[in-house]
Amino acid sequence: MLADVQKALDAFKQRDITRVFLVACGGSSSLMYSSKYVLDRESENIDSYLYSSNEFLHRNPKKLNEKSLVILCSHFGKTPETVEAALFARDKGALTVGLTFDGDSPLAKAVEHVIVYDDRESASYLNESSAIMLELVFGLLAAKEGNGKFMDLISSLEDLRSLIDIEKAKFLPLAQELAKSYKNEKVIYTMGSGANYGIAYWFAICILMEMQWIHSHAIHAGEYFHGPFEVLDKNVPFIVLLGLDETRPLEERSLEFTQNYGERVIVLDAKALNLTTIADSVKGYIAPFALQALLRQFADELAKERNHPLSTRRYMWKVPY
Amino acid sequence: MLADVQKALDAFKQRDITRVFLVACGGSSSLMYSSKYVLDRESENIDSYLYSSNEFLHRNPKKLNEKSLVILCSHFGKTPETVEAALFARDKGALTVGLTFDGDSPLAKAVEHVIVYDDRESASYLNESSAIMLELVFGLLAAKEGNGKFMDLISSLEDLRSLIDIEKAKFLPLAQELAKSYKNEKVIYTMGSGANYGIAYWFAICILMEMQWIHSHAIHAGEYFHGPFEVLDKNVPFIVLLGLDETRPLEERSLEFTQNYGERVIVLDAKALNLTTIADSVKGYIAPFALQALLRQFADELAKERNHPLSTRRYMWKVPY
Repeated sequence: MLADVQKALDAFKQRDITRVFLVACGGSSSLMYSSKYVLDRESENIDSYLYSSNEFLHRNPKKLNEKSLVILCSHFGKTPETVEAALFARDKGALTVGLTFDGDSPLAKAVEHVIVYDDRESASYLNESSAIMLELVFGLLAAKEGNGKFMDLISSLEDLRSLIDIEKAKFLPLAQELAKSYKNEKVIYTMGSGANYGIAYWFAICILMEMQWIHSHAIHAGEYFHGPFEVLDKNVPFIVLLGLDETRPLEERSLEFTQNYGERVIVLDAKALNLTTIADSVKGYIAPFALQALLRQFADELAKERNHPLSTRRYMWKVPY
Repeated sequence: MLADVQKALDAFKQRDITRVFLVACGGSSSLMYSSKYVLDRESENIDSYLYSSNEFLHRNPKKLNEKSLVILCSHFGKTPETVEAALFARDKGALTVGLTFDGDSPLAKAVEHVIVYDDRESASYLNESSAIMLELVFGLLAAKEGNGKFMDLISSLEDLRSLIDIEKAKFLPLAQELAKSYKNEKVIYTMGSGANYGIAYWFAICILMEMQWIHSHAIHAGEYFHGPFEVLDKNVPFIVLLGLDETRPLEERSLEFTQNYGERVIVLDAKALNLTTIADSVKGYIAPFALQALLRQFADELAKERNHPLSTRRYMWKVPY
């Protein structure tokens, strides 16, 4: 585990913390959904909120105060709303922790505790931003409520990279086949629930919309039957995620319906992956990381088939906004 | 105000309430987003959560207990997940309030306090489900924290129907024109933030996806620049909502960009509406109701132009799911 993470956890022990605010934008926000799920499922007393940075600033939650922990994330550490949110939270007396890839970035300077993550594929999964999010919340719950899953989490994350590498190698031929099959689609929906919803959202808005200019929407599997499912026909593509958390029955129900009436369904099922060294106590929370790695591999192949590199943008970092 | 609402408010006074859970599916859930916004903005101590019913059940929030208030809604009162959520919450000792159109429905029987709303266009806006949601949360905040906006809310809602009727009459020609212009679109996005996000979500999933089989997604205006905006080109249609709450700058920024690079933008701006009798203290929370009425009118005209009645379904209430 990174020394930066340990320092933040030490700081948690010194503070009375009654609420956690998870604040970021886009992809950085999406990786916080599973932490929110953990806090809802596991915490006896600590309330939690997840906001897009500019919504957080303007909503100005009245309960944000010196007993609040605000965790922020921005890859390059330059997202203006997120930097401003950090300063705003500090001004309210909250304890601030910022995750970023760049230790010299504005976000790194704005927060009390910066954690510089390392998401190179050669690095331990322990040092990935999404993993650090879980380390922070389970560390908090250990310190404040005696939650005992922290060590299970750490040992599970230590093994995760090698498990994921094996699964990616197995998945590659299917990813290539799916990329060929879906390369001309104009709309692709994603679907998930619980700890998985964040990666469904990430794939929809960061990969499909941002990096491939394909129309998309992350449909919550529990909401599907209350409106969205009416768009389904044989030709409408869906990516359905099946996780290992307690909401899996929602995903299974949505998948069954989609397979009954649709013919363009991609299923990524965490049960089909070898995650045997992941502790049962945290398996549901970690499964999204494995699914995300496969989704990313599919994205790479899709980009190749479409001759549309994932780095292509028409507006982002190019025009004022 | 309905006697049912008063009875629920009386019950709030008798109970220690530290958390509010807003639980429903689809359109019934969408009308709770502005109540969550109110609780975040206005409440000093009461924490709040919003879940789709089946997510609530399976997530099983650990902090749900006898000090929780759970507000549920289902129009016909038959949504199985929502009925089950009510029983689940009661079993945890929570105080349950259920909004429904049918006082004999399973939801009405499952909750401790049923509120039978009246959303006929002839009824006072006070008795609409979305208005009752605000009455409940402001009544709760009056009882527990001395929040003084409850009477402003009530007097503002009393006048709202007539204001909305005038605005609808003014909007009708434009609604008809827009319906003609957008009738062949395959994808239409909606966008909003703050108190407005719920109606952006409602229009996307209930009107466009469910009732018109048009692809859609409610994009949060604060998330737009962190992925979704890359799908924008001249021909991609957006409906951008401008409300009167504190997050309006997010909506304005998104609109400006969309109008710069897009040519298919529908703007519904609450500032252009005559809401003079609505109290300033609650205007931001009530503005979504007026915008929703205009959206509904646009939906009616769109359905006519497309020869696709809003009541048409292929799956809902027709096949098992």
